[in-house]
Amino acid sequence: MTGQEMYDIADRIFPICRSITGQGVRDTLAILQEYDKDIEIHEFPTGMQAFDWNVPKEWNIEDAYIEDSNGNKIIDFKKNNLHVLGYSSPVDEYVNLDELLTHVYTEPGQPDAIPYVTSYYKERYGFCMTENQKNELIKNSKPEDKYHMVVKSSLTNGVLNYGELVIPGETDDEILFSTYTCHPSMANNECSGPALAMGLINYVRSLEKRRYTYRFLLIPESIGSISYMSKNLEHMQKHIKAIFVLSCVGDNNDYSIIHSRYGKTLADRVLTNVLKYHYPEYSDYSYLERGSDEKHYNAPGVDLPAVAFCRSKYGEFREYHTSEDNMDYISPEGFDGAFQVMTQVINALEHNYNYKIKTLCEPQLGKRGLFPDLSRKGMYNPLMTLRNLIAYADGTNDLIEISEIIGVPVSEIIPNVQKLMDNDLLEIV
Amino acid sequence: MTGQEMYDIADRIFPICRSITGQGVRDTLAILQEYDKDIEIHEFPTGMQAFDWNVPKEWNIEDAYIEDSNGNKIIDFKKNNLHVLGYSSPVDEYVNLDELLTHVYTEPGQPDAIPYVTSYYKERYGFCMTENQKNELIKNSKPEDKYHMVVKSSLTNGVLNYGELVIPGETDDEILFSTYTCHPSMANNECSGPALAMGLINYVRSLEKRRYTYRFLLIPESIGSISYMSKNLEHMQKHIKAIFVLSCVGDNNDYSIIHSRYGKTLADRVLTNVLKYHYPEYSDYSYLERGSDEKHYNAPGVDLPAVAFCRSKYGEFREYHTSEDNMDYISPEGFDGAFQVMTQVINALEHNYNYKIKTLCEPQLGKRGLFPDLSRKGMYNPLMTLRNLIAYADGTNDLIEISEIIGVPVSEIIPNVQKLMDNDLLEIV
Amino acid sequence: MTGQEMYDIADRIFPICRSITGQGVRDTLAILQEYDKDIEIHEFPTGMQAFDWNVPKEWNIEDAYIEDSNGNKIIDFKKNNLHVLGYSSPVDEYVNLDELLTHVYTEPGQPDAIPYVTSYYKERYGFCMTENQKNELIKNSKPEDKYHMVVKSSLTNGVLNYGELVIPGETDDEILFSTYTCHPSMANNECSGPALAMGLINYVRSLEKRRYTYRFLLIPESIGSISYMSKNLEHMQKHIKAIFVLSCVGDNNDYSIIHSRYGKTLADRVLTNVLKYHYPEYSDYSYLERGSDEKHYNAPGVDLPAVAFCRSKYGEFREYHTSEDNMDYISPEGFDGAFQVMTQVINALEHNYNYKIKTLCEPQLGKRGLFPDLSRKGMYNPLMTLRNLIAYADGTNDLIEISEIIGVPVSEIIPNVQKLMDNDLLEIV
Repeated sequence: MTGQEMYDIADRIFPICRSITGQGVRDTLAILQEYDKDIEIHEFPTGMQAFDWNVPKEWNIEDAYIEDSNGNKIIDFKKNNLHVLGYSSPVDEYVNLDELLTHVYTEPGQPDAIPYVTSYYKERYGFCMTENQKNELIKNSKPEDKYHMVVKSSLTNGVLNYGELVIPGETDDEILFSTYTCHPSMANNECSGPALAMGLINYVRSLEKRRYTYRFLLIPESIGSISYMSKNLEHMQKHIKAIFVLSCVGDNNDYSIIHSRYGKTLADRVLTNVLKYHYPEYSDYSYLERGSDEKHYNAPGVDLPAVAFCRSKYGEFREYHTSEDNMDYISPEGFDGAFQVMTQVINALEHNYNYKIKTLCEPQLGKRGLFPDLSRKGMYNPLMTLRNLIAYADGTNDLIEISEIIGVPVSEIIPNVQKLMDNDLLEIV
Repeated sequence: MTGQEMYDIADRIFPICRSITGQGVRDTLAILQEYDKDIEIHEFPTGMQAFDWNVPKEWNIEDAYIEDSNGNKIIDFKKNNLHVLGYSSPVDEYVNLDELLTHVYTEPGQPDAIPYVTSYYKERYGFCMTENQKNELIKNSKPEDKYHMVVKSSLTNGVLNYGELVIPGETDDEILFSTYTCHPSMANNECSGPALAMGLINYVRSLEKRRYTYRFLLIPESIGSISYMSKNLEHMQKHIKAIFVLSCVGDNNDYSIIHSRYGKTLADRVLTNVLKYHYPEYSDYSYLERGSDEKHYNAPGVDLPAVAFCRSKYGEFREYHTSEDNMDYISPEGFDGAFQVMTQVINALEHNYNYKIKTLCEPQLGKRGLFPDLSRKGMYNPLMTLRNLIAYADGTNDLIEISEIIGVPVSEIIPNVQKLMDNDLLEIV
Repeated sequence: MTGQEMYDIADRIFPICRSITGQGVRDTLAILQEYDKDIEIHEFPTGMQAFDWNVPKEWNIEDAYIEDSNGNKIIDFKKNNLHVLGYSSPVDEYVNLDELLTHVYTEPGQPDAIPYVTSYYKERYGFCMTENQKNELIKNSKPEDKYHMVVKSSLTNGVLNYGELVIPGETDDEILFSTYTCHPSMANNECSGPALAMGLINYVRSLEKRRYTYRFLLIPESIGSISYMSKNLEHMQKHIKAIFVLSCVGDNNDYSIIHSRYGKTLADRVLTNVLKYHYPEYSDYSYLERGSDEKHYNAPGVDLPAVAFCRSKYGEFREYHTSEDNMDYISPEGFDGAFQVMTQVINALEHNYNYKIKTLCEPQLGKRGLFPDLSRKGMYNPLMTLRNLIAYADGTNDLIEISEIIGVPVSEIIPNVQKLMDNDLLEIV
């Protein structure tokens, strides 16, 4: 799938007002299903216990606005769904300025941006606006002014929805790609993840053979992944070999990895390896800087091997969690790059066996046409990847470890693995 | 106990002429007993075998001086007990200058200082004086001059004394503070250790609950600790979890740790952790620079977990082992600081359990009032210590290890441990 | 053996035209036998299987030259045996310039040097000359010129020879020195290895007692060592504790180590230790830069503990594999230095036990005259090697490890080991 195609998916789902529950999630998943009809949509009911948590009420919203004394809508949810506090309870009240301001949220450091604010677990209502809008509102306000605050929302017993797709492989060892579907109109920190996931689904389906089973989760952050784990933990602990949380993958800045709890899982190793050789300017964040679902997958007792993959890391770019994280902040090129990284990760994983050379001592490569038949000064160098692969294919190292030892990207080692396999010189341990 | 109170203790014991045996040790211990009557005074008899060593004869001294031909005391033990060679045998002889000088010790690099010199295991007599005194003596000497060398000392079968105090805790796991009582009038490299020990005894007694049993040893260096171990090794190896040798802890310079043999014991870990976060300018010495009783506690086969704690490390300050290490070299502020370090060490040890979070996935902190109920950009940061504690409270790390991983001092983690304990979210493994 | 004596041995074998098989190897071994009659000469027959390899036909050569149209020998094997392509098949043909040039090899970057080129496993013939000779040949050539290419060689069923010497020690643990005998007239990258081996044979014989059995192999590179291992692998894996491949050990540049596959064998540790303390400017090459028989000894499944030792590393000096690697490139001083390194390695190995101090706590050194009987400021330092040896002689460290921990060369620790042994204070674990 091209970067443009992924960008277009992001663009289609961008306008929807999503939250952790509600119609917005279902609308989003319905669009994604158009790209792969096998995506299944599941649900967890309100109140369901998930470890220490409970699935909250379902939130739906029809409209929200603030009218001034003249009946002008000075803030309008229909213009930008960030204007309403996420999970806002319904309200229909006339208040003076002071009272109004107790329900207003802005981001003073970015005076033109509407901030994204939510209140999932405590019922309240509120409005988000730019600092400039707030200042204008105050400036224009006369003492006698009344403001009409309206939120037409509902909090009812319902469900939390998520999408899931499993693409089977030769083994039931699983690679999980997890991304979220719970933020309203933000491009990088919401729409980019599902869009890249669709590209990767397409790519995984295109593989001639698959060693791993690939699972894709399109799920609300935190309560979604926690609920999912509470129902599937045993299976996950048994089968999952690596988890990649996809977040903020559509912009054009350098790549980021946020490591697992101890930084040593297969997920850490393979993504670090790919980034190190191909994108050496990448940013390496420890688990102390976690923030998306990797923090739940890695929790004590859960202990799943998860890292997060971003371009600009969530929380580290100015536009994050504001209306400035819009479709201009991401680009087809941004998706192309993230897609390249993740497909390299998949290829490295697919070939990541412990190999063992079948001969004692280096095999005679010359008689198999793998080595020059003339020996002269300096001529060994071009074959060093092949020969270093042989040297460390002692059964104790996987391919990623060999790549680390010999200083050569996995992608350059794989053709040499193939040559040796074709000559019956290498076996998988 | 305040720094001033500890300084005053040091000041009281400063004038006494101590050695590894004799009345000086007993007088010192008697003063210390005034501050805690439970300090017990024990003894080992002369000749007692202690591993490869034997307890030496008891040394007592009444007076020592050199008189010139006119009967003037040009060197007088009563003015400064460093003037006599430690463990000097008795003498009463008239000698010429050349003969006299064979019994004189000076420190040419510090011409105004009387050096501290001893001869424990070979019987000899001698006098220490400043380089300037020696030069004056030579300058004023006439060929016919006779000098009267007098040492009124005795070397007899007797005992080696030491003081010991045990403050019981909930378990019989022990923390040992060891300091020495065997040098004559030197302030930092003798009196500061016992004075700080008295402060720590007072502090340990004040704790509401004590997990550990605390043992304090006030004992002559080397032969004292070796003798003690020869009688108590099995108990020590079974119960002692950390030893802190206190030496040179009253001056005002930066702190020092001298590590254990391999640098990885609990004693190394906790003291390094406290110093690293609170006093980052501290000096870190390997076991190759050992010099006090940590060298015996760490000996092969003994293998006790001991570090030494100093402000200026013994041997590393100019005044060391001379008359310049006097009460002006130490200060109440110096004691205060050392006391702060050691009480932080005790607190870290008391809380140093392997903790395990009781929920699968991060607990829902919000419903317990431990987390803001509004989610907006950047707001997670103030809670990161709590959340990082949860993330690494997986039962495999003790609190010191968690402190190292998350980059936060133990003292800032403890209140978070308490919060989680109060909410029944954390257990001790 | 002096550097001059080793240089003289190299000088005697330099003129011989060696290859991996043939009379040149036998002539070389016969000369070496003059220096130690116990060197045994063995053979493997053509066609013998050795793991994935087979012993090639035996190559012998009588003469080779190119004559121009006037019958002048413009290239003459008798002037320099590098002029013939190694393992050249016989030829006797008249050809024009273009045809001739398809059989000519030069090293354009070194226009005055004849390169060393071989074709062991594919039958072809050819001539090596300097780039200048080739250009002269072309310049002087007229269209009608015919060149007479003559190689009087034979490729027949025969044998591959090697020399072997075993000097028994107290145990059947073995140290193997391996060097090669398969290059024609090159000084550093051929003659220096066997010459140094003769010096070391002489040295090992001179030792009063030998803990290790020492084996010396004088053997063709690659096919020689592979064949040897195919017949002796079980014995080698059981007994060999360290292998040193000697190559390029006669020049005057700094020393080099090429490490084993994982860089942690006894061979790595001892040679690194000696070089680090005594020749800190040495070059440290990883196994990725291997090139001589260490690559076969270290092969997966073989797993012998081998490093290579060079002064200038093979392949890293300009003269390598050309006629410029002649007797001027090496020197008696070069041999002397390499001999010093290797004899220090042998001494370190001979003393490399795990020692354990026999007393609990540090022994009382004073009563044995090992320690001053007067204690004063600063006087401990000169004895720190002795005392640090005691501190780490806990039975878990070998002598090399102690050297690494205490920062003192093995050669300075050995006399202290002796002192403690003499006083019955130390035992071998």
